[in-house]
Amino acid sequence: MSTNKTGVTLPAGFKAAAAQAGIKYQNRLDMAMIYSEAPCKVAGTFTTNQVKAAPVKWDQHIVYDCGTARAVICNSGIANAATGQEGMDCCRKSAEAAANALNAANEAAAPVTTDDILVASTGVIGMQIPVDKISAGVEMMIPELSPSEESAHLAAQAIMTTDTVPKEVGIQVEIGGKTVSIGGMCKGSGMIHPNMCTMLSFLTTDAAISQEMLQKALSAVVVDTYNMVSVDGDTSTNDTVLLLANGMAGNDEITEENTDYQAFCEALFEINRQLARKIASDGEGATALFEVTVKGAADKASAVTLAKSVVTSSLTKAAIYGHDANWGRIMCALGYAGIEFDPDQVELWLTSAAGTVKIFENGSAADYSEEEATKILSEPEVTAIADMHQGDGEATAWGCDLTHEYVSINADYRS
Amino acid sequence: MSTNKTGVTLPAGFKAAAAQAGIKYQNRLDMAMIYSEAPCKVAGTFTTNQVKAAPVKWDQHIVYDCGTARAVICNSGIANAATGQEGMDCCRKSAEAAANALNAANEAAAPVTTDDILVASTGVIGMQIPVDKISAGVEMMIPELSPSEESAHLAAQAIMTTDTVPKEVGIQVEIGGKTVSIGGMCKGSGMIHPNMCTMLSFLTTDAAISQEMLQKALSAVVVDTYNMVSVDGDTSTNDTVLLLANGMAGNDEITEENTDYQAFCEALFEINRQLARKIASDGEGATALFEVTVKGAADKASAVTLAKSVVTSSLTKAAIYGHDANWGRIMCALGYAGIEFDPDQVELWLTSAAGTVKIFENGSAADYSEEEATKILSEPEVTAIADMHQGDGEATAWGCDLTHEYVSINADYRS
Repeated sequence: MSTNKTGVTLPAGFKAAAAQAGIKYQNRLDMAMIYSEAPCKVAGTFTTNQVKAAPVKWDQHIVYDCGTARAVICNSGIANAATGQEGMDCCRKSAEAAANALNAANEAAAPVTTDDILVASTGVIGMQIPVDKISAGVEMMIPELSPSEESAHLAAQAIMTTDTVPKEVGIQVEIGGKTVSIGGMCKGSGMIHPNMCTMLSFLTTDAAISQEMLQKALSAVVVDTYNMVSVDGDTSTNDTVLLLANGMAGNDEITEENTDYQAFCEALFEINRQLARKIASDGEGATALFEVTVKGAADKASAVTLAKSVVTSSLTKAAIYGHDANWGRIMCALGYAGIEFDPDQVELWLTSAAGTVKIFENGSAADYSEEEATKILSEPEVTAIADMHQGDGEATAWGCDLTHEYVSINADYRS
Repeated sequence: MSTNKTGVTLPAGFKAAAAQAGIKYQNRLDMAMIYSEAPCKVAGTFTTNQVKAAPVKWDQHIVYDCGTARAVICNSGIANAATGQEGMDCCRKSAEAAANALNAANEAAAPVTTDDILVASTGVIGMQIPVDKISAGVEMMIPELSPSEESAHLAAQAIMTTDTVPKEVGIQVEIGGKTVSIGGMCKGSGMIHPNMCTMLSFLTTDAAISQEMLQKALSAVVVDTYNMVSVDGDTSTNDTVLLLANGMAGNDEITEENTDYQAFCEALFEINRQLARKIASDGEGATALFEVTVKGAADKASAVTLAKSVVTSSLTKAAIYGHDANWGRIMCALGYAGIEFDPDQVELWLTSAAGTVKIFENGSAADYSEEEATKILSEPEVTAIADMHQGDGEATAWGCDLTHEYVSINADYRS
């Protein structure tokens, strides 16, 4: 798998653009658009939150009832969540504006309909979006749509909220003798604890694949990638992953779980693993990526629960921030996860680019140097490994440290 | 119910003392002792964490296998958790030291045995306790044992760790024509998310009551008090509630669920509700008590889950710190609790000493003044009320805001 290029315009036939639409903020990009020259199969996974943002409902209709799409428009000022019927009307009007503008510009060979336009939002919950600004933003973006890498970069910037860096990836893989590309961008920094879905992530591919297999591949991959990320334990109302496939790579269409499907899934997993790690390491206020691997658990589900319990523990996260090898908090977080185990059997390690130390075994502290542990914990990427010695279950979760800056960002996010 | 006096020495026959034993810190009280002139029935609830501190196992043996006790000794320097066999040996030696010292001082009419001594610890996980310092602390405390209110105050100070205030309560209630007293003290500020038990809480009463009914009353009461408190979502390895009853009030012994039992339970509930609120409002770094009441839920269990989801939401807690009426985060936290509901049916209010505003109804923001909401959120005790309009389920949970100080305390707790 090759990954030297990035972004949603990497696959053939995809264009992107961004605009300053002034939805909430001035003087920053706050709208992005992805457009495919050819009709796409579309797959999606969405938040399990009972409070679903209007665009989540809009996109669920398109993914579940239509299965095809041509474009995504996204704004990063207002989440359009908890906005009632007015919020749904906003989605419809936004999609109409995009479809009309694309048709007027003759961008699409065949007429684009409202049901071809996916809509995504992120930002403040509860405010209504000024639809006229969405329409104006769309008008600005249509002439800018470009297959360049630069346009993908601008789009990735435009979907950021409290993110400090844009997050893009790209992979190319041989499938059936053809080079298939997958590109992606995502945003996410706070309110991050995805469940069967995630923050906003937009993936494009030129693979030829049926909608059924596309959805199957995406649903399988999110479980071990986005769903294993937690910044703050709060599962958002807007979490959305969209994957568009326009078939322009020319490979034989993937319609069953054959070797081509496996190759596609492996590439899709890798791209989403990278995006998930980028989200964790750019968690609000974070100074370090915190990775937790649990192995030797009774089964996979137990490993997932244990790893997530540690990666979401406020006390453990604060200790990582303080470069403090407070393994007691890790043991404590394993202990309250709701999984039965014998603490005396557990082994714990801390590892990073600076080295590896075993910190716990036989029911109490291992013989390690605090100085060495502190050095290990001072790296920008830190991993805790727990071996439960119960079975073959293994899982990895990603999070970040809990910092003063997290509190500052969220004490006055709306101000 | 009268509550003008406080502390564990309020009930007849109980004495307390404190000492600077130098377990971990210098120049502060770090050991406390409670002693009853008469033998006590004892009830207890303990952490559900798989990693149980040695004193939890010690006390479980006494409560479950013996059911009687004479004294509690507690240190607040080292938790004696994840300390293996050496930690268990420490408990036994501590109890032996206390029993021997009490017998030598002729404090007890009948000889005190090791199995009469409850042991509790709080502080750093993983370190071993220097047992000789415990023995020396016990020797210091025996001559100081006193039924005075002042000695109870000193004991309450001595069990503090990151607590900023000692936490004591007292209640007197008429049972069967006799005045029964219940006193209590507790500590808890971080690693607070009790489950079927809690932090350290020591309760004394002179009620005459069978061990079976004493345990039944305590187990019933913790569900709606300590188990509804969360400072940081981390369930400690040491959570322990102990309730000692020496029968010296002279009431007819309570041996069944009669009106005397009901009166006792009501008083016990009130005392524990007050202690639970004290713990929440003194949460590490907290500037405000945050109370969440969910009503109209489908059933009690759903109400508990919903209320806890809001009270533990990092984003909601940060918004409370920022005095920001960010009801979107409350709706979001209700939404990811795992309980099905229709967001359009939910009503939300914020209330405090400064007033009450409805902030959400009919699926979107209610018509309220941000200025008024900010004024309400600037009080030291703030309540959010959610009416789910599904049924009769109701529950109240207590927590606190998430502040810079919480991060500071926990980034270098061990330093």
